[in-house]
Amino acid sequence: MPAPTTDVDLALAAELAQQLRVDSIRSSTSAGSGHPTSSMSAADLMAVLVGRHLRYDWDDPGNAANDHLIFSKGHASPLLYSIYKAVGVVSDEELMTGYRRFGSRLEGHPTPVLPWVDVATGSLGQGLPDAVGVALAGKYLEELPYRVWVLCGDSEIAEGSIWEALDKAAYYKLSNLVAIVDINRLGQRGPTEHEWDTDVYRRRVTAFGARAFVIDGHDLAAIDRTLAEAGEAGGDQPTVILARTIKGRGFTEVEDKENWHGKPLPPEMAERAVIELGGERNLLVRGPVPDQATPRHPARANGAVDIKLPAYDLGQKVATRKAYGDALAAIGARPDVVAMDGEVSNSTFADEFAKAYPERYFEMFIAEQQLVAAAVGFGVRGYRPFASTFAAFFTRAYDFIRMAAISQANICLAGSHAGVEIGADGPSQMALEDLAMLRAVHGSTVLYPCDGTSAAALVLAMADREGISYMRTTRGAYPVLYDAAETFPIGGSKVLRQTDADQVALIGAGVTLHECLAAAGQLAAGGIDARVIDLYSVKPADTATLTAAAAATGGRLVIAEDHHPEGGLGSAVLDALTGAGRVDLAVAHLAVREMPGSGTPAELLGASGIDAAHIAEAARRLLAEE
Amino acid sequence: MPAPTTDVDLALAAELAQQLRVDSIRSSTSAGSGHPTSSMSAADLMAVLVGRHLRYDWDDPGNAANDHLIFSKGHASPLLYSIYKAVGVVSDEELMTGYRRFGSRLEGHPTPVLPWVDVATGSLGQGLPDAVGVALAGKYLEELPYRVWVLCGDSEIAEGSIWEALDKAAYYKLSNLVAIVDINRLGQRGPTEHEWDTDVYRRRVTAFGARAFVIDGHDLAAIDRTLAEAGEAGGDQPTVILARTIKGRGFTEVEDKENWHGKPLPPEMAERAVIELGGERNLLVRGPVPDQATPRHPARANGAVDIKLPAYDLGQKVATRKAYGDALAAIGARPDVVAMDGEVSNSTFADEFAKAYPERYFEMFIAEQQLVAAAVGFGVRGYRPFASTFAAFFTRAYDFIRMAAISQANICLAGSHAGVEIGADGPSQMALEDLAMLRAVHGSTVLYPCDGTSAAALVLAMADREGISYMRTTRGAYPVLYDAAETFPIGGSKVLRQTDADQVALIGAGVTLHECLAAAGQLAAGGIDARVIDLYSVKPADTATLTAAAAATGGRLVIAEDHHPEGGLGSAVLDALTGAGRVDLAVAHLAVREMPGSGTPAELLGASGIDAAHIAEAARRLLAEE
Repeated sequence: MPAPTTDVDLALAAELAQQLRVDSIRSSTSAGSGHPTSSMSAADLMAVLVGRHLRYDWDDPGNAANDHLIFSKGHASPLLYSIYKAVGVVSDEELMTGYRRFGSRLEGHPTPVLPWVDVATGSLGQGLPDAVGVALAGKYLEELPYRVWVLCGDSEIAEGSIWEALDKAAYYKLSNLVAIVDINRLGQRGPTEHEWDTDVYRRRVTAFGARAFVIDGHDLAAIDRTLAEAGEAGGDQPTVILARTIKGRGFTEVEDKENWHGKPLPPEMAERAVIELGGERNLLVRGPVPDQATPRHPARANGAVDIKLPAYDLGQKVATRKAYGDALAAIGARPDVVAMDGEVSNSTFADEFAKAYPERYFEMFIAEQQLVAAAVGFGVRGYRPFASTFAAFFTRAYDFIRMAAISQANICLAGSHAGVEIGADGPSQMALEDLAMLRAVHGSTVLYPCDGTSAAALVLAMADREGISYMRTTRGAYPVLYDAAETFPIGGSKVLRQTDADQVALIGAGVTLHECLAAAGQLAAGGIDARVIDLYSVKPADTATLTAAAAATGGRLVIAEDHHPEGGLGSAVLDALTGAGRVDLAVAHLAVREMPGSGTPAELLGASGIDAAHIAEAARRLLAEE
Repeated sequence: MPAPTTDVDLALAAELAQQLRVDSIRSSTSAGSGHPTSSMSAADLMAVLVGRHLRYDWDDPGNAANDHLIFSKGHASPLLYSIYKAVGVVSDEELMTGYRRFGSRLEGHPTPVLPWVDVATGSLGQGLPDAVGVALAGKYLEELPYRVWVLCGDSEIAEGSIWEALDKAAYYKLSNLVAIVDINRLGQRGPTEHEWDTDVYRRRVTAFGARAFVIDGHDLAAIDRTLAEAGEAGGDQPTVILARTIKGRGFTEVEDKENWHGKPLPPEMAERAVIELGGERNLLVRGPVPDQATPRHPARANGAVDIKLPAYDLGQKVATRKAYGDALAAIGARPDVVAMDGEVSNSTFADEFAKAYPERYFEMFIAEQQLVAAAVGFGVRGYRPFASTFAAFFTRAYDFIRMAAISQANICLAGSHAGVEIGADGPSQMALEDLAMLRAVHGSTVLYPCDGTSAAALVLAMADREGISYMRTTRGAYPVLYDAAETFPIGGSKVLRQTDADQVALIGAGVTLHECLAAAGQLAAGGIDARVIDLYSVKPADTATLTAAAAATGGRLVIAEDHHPEGGLGSAVLDALTGAGRVDLAVAHLAVREMPGSGTPAELLGASGIDAAHIAEAARRLLAEE
């Protein structure tokens, strides 16, 4: 590689911006797909940022002192990848032959298969919330001087998550966060809601506590001045730069025209555009790098820490949500563990961690999207985040959880108050879809312990698990079943009752495991031997134990779950069994099939048909039918 | 019932407020559960509203001219139910013995099992977005003078959905919408983010385009003046009343104290509270009723309308998303059909409806939570809403979809661009969890047509379906398989290939159905007869056809779906088969098991192992294994 130019003045930045436009057009036209016009509007902003302000060691993306650059408008990927060419980390050939192609790392929207990408974007309104998490880590945990720069689109400002992010950025005084909004007036299908009314944007972002600058996004000197001021240390506000821009800027045939969103220029138009933009260029530039005196890696240790999990007595009544809090506080001995909650930490028991490690606890108030996004951001910086709220309210953040998987984030989620077991509060507070939702996430782990011992052990296991890990906890306190010495591998299960002559297997998890045990007692009193399986690891599920149970019982299984019938424990069992080869099954699947109301836990478990009496009856019916 | 007092002056309103407080305490203490202090803070506001401003015929909740009252802070249910007692529609006995009890309609959080409740609340930040839908219907469709009053909590203002709602309320100039924010400074676990900083709230809501009033929420005269002004016709802004209140107001032992959220007063404290509040009362009051000249029911017809669905030629290539748009425009002949979209109507083809019926089309821009909430609000007013966006982005609104089911809403959702089939855009735009998510919703219908004919027929079927109906559509165009005369009952399927000697069944839906057909052709060339089933109705699934297929093929099934393995088509098939009795199965379940990137649809279907070649190979392997 020839030596890059490191002294980028505004004249060179102007050339660089044209190169970024040309390359955005060339790459998307070659791919026959992509968003060149959305890239062209932001090219001047990014040329000045990357050439003169972003402190980034492109040879060492893992340098802890690097600034972060997040494209919240992920569809401007041609612009991002053209930047990578301009700084010399992606070749022109890769850009032209890889963009949006099968097997390439230059995907349609950026993902962290690229070493310079922190988080996957492309579902709008997520990059800024993720950036809040990164900035929180930088300001409060790492105490590193990096800045977090986020390129936002104007259409995505309509997402509520943007306002959750700005609210938290101001609350936590994230002066290290700069959002640059590319206000190009046009969305996918026509004008945006507020078009070029920068005053509306300015009033809103300042009301939310940010410092706002309104600029012409094509005036390089104004961009340069504003980025310099925005990037200065000090102050106690996040910054939002509201840049009025023109979609398709630089090619008059498409400038500010509708119907050019998400469309590559046809080859002959692309040719005219490149000519109008001054032709192809191959500038190689680098902007500033971080101060070399800054530690290249964060100081925090992550190794051998002595963690003493809580121990409970057999038979002692412990809510698994309480065990979650106990265990979370225990693993807080690891300095990489951080926790956050959606303003219900006295219900999820995350408050135990908050009391023990207040400096690593972040209150996210009632903003579940930002709760999960902050976790993703902490994960970007190598922390191990645990985010908790009522299990039902993680549905609010499903898009963020799904995207976290694409971001290759390692995050731990804990949802309390699952199922009808919660009782009087009624269906709005009952998670009855969470197992289905979390199981369907790529690479996820789904845990649903039935007692304090297993819950505590699994919290520790989650802390080293890759991907999205989810634990479902229960409101009420139930007897501890396991000795503290027991182990609970992810992907395992426990057989709590077994004979050589089992006629049926009862499979439960969480609260229904206790009902299964009671049912087995009732069945035994009637002379029926029932195997009882605690499927605490819902995903991955213990195929070997389930297959053996089916083989031993003539395929007679009763599965009981405090969840709607679709996608939860029942599906986990059926997927495991049918995935292992031919199988002969007679299944009774007990789940919450009617809309519940209020009541006591016992009343609601009974009315939903998932209590011990119904489980025993289902087992008897399976046997009677043959 | 004795005659209620209909002339409620402020002195009587003060007494009424105390009664509401007393009854909130009594009911929650009797239940041993509930949120009395969150009710007491808003009692003055609601006493003046219900006694003097809310126009509501309590004897006829179906009166189309009634104002609407939505408790976005659903946990203040004791206050709401105490209002119902005060107006004489719920007895003191029901309140005291029913609240939060099993089988009672007075659930922990309000749901429409009560005739005066429009929507279920309790997941915060939803009542106001739902109300935007109701207000849109009133202003633009029904042209009725009703107002929509919403009681919000201060904690829920942290939800991004609140800002989506205010943004849309201002954009659509909803002067018929009044949000009353009960700023009692305390959330569940401690102080709210902005406590009593009403200036922060005022700046934000005015920046979002609302008219704001800041008042002392315990000053009855100020409340009265403000409600009168807020409720006046005219103007072009929504109104937000920011009421500074005291949590637990009226009982000094708990006023403005932490740790009293969501806790009933113990009986002896409740006794002292009732004494301090002046004792039990049994006031019976009614406020104003709607102008009797207003039509009691909306004029729109909903009966025999001639709908001419689009017809496609066999073999013609039609994208199901295009058929969705064609059919939606066709059923627009029904005056109760309304449509809305999340700023991608040129991709979902909802724009066809927008062009044909602009007066019944509402652009929601990129705000999927508000998109679904608006649909729920239109449903409250008896309209049949169709809301569309990319299928992946409905994950953003999962909490709203879940709550819509509790609200007993009849809404139709259409998600386009499903699965890896979309190609170059990459995983952020690929719905791979949507079938799992929607199947797990109580009472939902999930449809996934493979061709234009079936898609169009199913759009029509959705329009009369109860509950949450979801259609998944595909980006690319595929051959039309069905004649326009075919019928597609919900819960049905189509057997597209069948012999008397089928050795295996290939089950697909949407794009994989075409791959199954191609695979069957390949298998037939090798002498293997394969049955092919189009499972266009994923929920409910066609148990009879699936069971017959399993019986005919020795249980050998290949299920192929463009979705993650969990909770989708495969689960639908296994749930149906195991729900019908003992079954002997050898299943190959082909689904998207690795994280996809960009590529062509064919490349990605192949790489995911769900194309014809993989389906045929899986079938051969099933046969070879035995």
